[in-house]
Amino acid sequence: MTSVGIVEPQAMPFAQPLALQSGAQLRDYTLVYETSGMLNADKSNAVLVCHALNASHHVAGTYAGQDKSEGWWDNLIGPGKPLDTNRFFVIGVNNPGSCFGSTGPMQTNPATGKTYGADFPVVTVEDWVDAQARLLDALGITQLAAVLGGSLGGMQALSWSLRYPTRLRHCVAVATAPNLSAQNIAFNEVARRAIVTDPDFHGGHFYEHHTLPRRGLRVARMIGHITYLSDDAMEAKFGRERKRGATGFSTQEIEFEIESYLRHQGDKFSEYFDANTYLLITRALDYFDPARAFGGDLSAAFAAAVCKFQIVSFTTDWRFAPQRSREIVKALVDRKRDVSYAEIDAPHGHDAFLLDDPRYHGVLRACFANIAAEFTGKTS
Amino acid sequence: MTSVGIVEPQAMPFAQPLALQSGAQLRDYTLVYETSGMLNADKSNAVLVCHALNASHHVAGTYAGQDKSEGWWDNLIGPGKPLDTNRFFVIGVNNPGSCFGSTGPMQTNPATGKTYGADFPVVTVEDWVDAQARLLDALGITQLAAVLGGSLGGMQALSWSLRYPTRLRHCVAVATAPNLSAQNIAFNEVARRAIVTDPDFHGGHFYEHHTLPRRGLRVARMIGHITYLSDDAMEAKFGRERKRGATGFSTQEIEFEIESYLRHQGDKFSEYFDANTYLLITRALDYFDPARAFGGDLSAAFAAAVCKFQIVSFTTDWRFAPQRSREIVKALVDRKRDVSYAEIDAPHGHDAFLLDDPRYHGVLRACFANIAAEFTGKTS
Repeated sequence: MTSVGIVEPQAMPFAQPLALQSGAQLRDYTLVYETSGMLNADKSNAVLVCHALNASHHVAGTYAGQDKSEGWWDNLIGPGKPLDTNRFFVIGVNNPGSCFGSTGPMQTNPATGKTYGADFPVVTVEDWVDAQARLLDALGITQLAAVLGGSLGGMQALSWSLRYPTRLRHCVAVATAPNLSAQNIAFNEVARRAIVTDPDFHGGHFYEHHTLPRRGLRVARMIGHITYLSDDAMEAKFGRERKRGATGFSTQEIEFEIESYLRHQGDKFSEYFDANTYLLITRALDYFDPARAFGGDLSAAFAAAVCKFQIVSFTTDWRFAPQRSREIVKALVDRKRDVSYAEIDAPHGHDAFLLDDPRYHGVLRACFANIAAEFTGKTS
Repeated sequence: MTSVGIVEPQAMPFAQPLALQSGAQLRDYTLVYETSGMLNADKSNAVLVCHALNASHHVAGTYAGQDKSEGWWDNLIGPGKPLDTNRFFVIGVNNPGSCFGSTGPMQTNPATGKTYGADFPVVTVEDWVDAQARLLDALGITQLAAVLGGSLGGMQALSWSLRYPTRLRHCVAVATAPNLSAQNIAFNEVARRAIVTDPDFHGGHFYEHHTLPRRGLRVARMIGHITYLSDDAMEAKFGRERKRGATGFSTQEIEFEIESYLRHQGDKFSEYFDANTYLLITRALDYFDPARAFGGDLSAAFAAAVCKFQIVSFTTDWRFAPQRSREIVKALVDRKRDVSYAEIDAPHGHDAFLLDDPRYHGVLRACFANIAAEFTGKTS
């Protein structure tokens, strides 16, 4: 198995405003995207890959001259890999509101000439899906072979099946949920409070003050990391290992390896991630709830869907537990939709969707082989 | 069932310094405590109740002229209640380092004449147990009928059985663990970082700056609250209930009831709890690990214990899960110690140990009835 090789991000500007769920409009925006593989003659082999909180359009391959610049899903996407770029044309797109190139809080607000900051409009999963659909319009792709996403990306994949039912043949949603639980929202809210109450946040206009709310971002990231890992995985990796041999009897110095790990993750994150993006993306997570318009009846919500579904969950994922995936599967079965479900026995918690567990990748390999068989005419 | 009625805290000063695990000494300290019930003639009916993070000596009864001032374990302790004050003499004591009356960071350091603040020495579960033993010396109580504690209080009860094996006949340890997991330490560390990086913390000497690190304390408390409740209990109580009917499309305004609840809890806590105490108590939790001196062999650690044990856990407690209590039980069984174990099917998570679940209280009622039968001479 090899890499897709050198990739290069591309920018697609949109002159037509994007009407958002909130009623606001996003004007003069740009989407940054990357592709790998070749689009076939009838444009039937495109797979859209949706990203989660801390990721981007850079799904696979590397950037020229940059070591260790592999895309975040490089273990899954490439020639001979489960999502095989010898067969599929893979598109990764950075969502508006993010901080990795597409129009977001760090860019200039055309209405004021100033950095958007906290004035960037609240965006939803549905808004992102609409933006992605417009990118596909611009690329001349009428129908996707599949939409694939994990976590928040999985929510986008589900939303695709409801908003543009005939524009995808398969929805592949991994480690996701039909909405956030109270506990999920609670963790998001604590992270947001840590950011918003950091004096360096300046109401979201910290750019003008030439500072960053690093303290809040660090705490937010540390909380996030705890929820990405399973209790068992954290225990196996760190346990009660000490940073030093003897007990230091200190409340502020690092005593345990887990503290060292979390502080390091927080420090790194606080230097590159945008605080307003963190608020926007966690809020998009909170709001996502396709059943809400149907009185909470998820099965009724899926009446709109016509594609086939592959749902995957991981046993030790306590952020989006298997039970939440089973809710999706049950709603689809109730609606007599075509759905396959794999519950992978993996120790890594939510992070498992980014790792190359052989059983997990086996499921996705088979899934995409079946999808490829449809457009290559094979019966597999 | 009635209340123990009006109680009054008492203060016991100690002129002899307390030698701490760190090597430091705590000088001229005072312990605040409360008692209910009557000590019997041979002083054989005393039960020591140990508190956890956010609690104190005020375990039962009310304060004169103060409505709603019930002690934190008032549902368990009183005449006719599971820990029956008609039979037992119950002692609650505030641990040094706390912020509810006993000597702690908010008090004056006799060495400097200034408020201790961050200079208060790091205290451990073992230090607290030593301080409690001295209080009992002063009260003339040689042997306790039982030591009872939940969560961090349960760790103190376990430590009693190891440090003063012949000074207690029963150890009743509820919703506790033989040490913190990596995930437990991780949550403590995030809370500590939120406090320490709050600019109003001033390195722990905020008293001199006439301010409080409220932002950090709020975030710390919000994180704590998430871990005290089970996922299911939070879902049942809050779910995705909105504060307002329509979606507000805001990242900072309160949208969900769970956000409102957490912010309220954080606000309240930040006004009365001491930030240095939070650091000290979470660190005491981190450090507790009686098996450490025995190469991790908990069974070897319990070689010192001679009392009887009642261990209780709750099925939905994910902070100190039943599995952690089972480790204690297994170590005791390996050592052929007298141990009873109850795993209570309760939906409330870690907080269950403070609630009056009938099955839970039934177990403790039977446990204390058996203990009372020993000194009243009944065979029950």
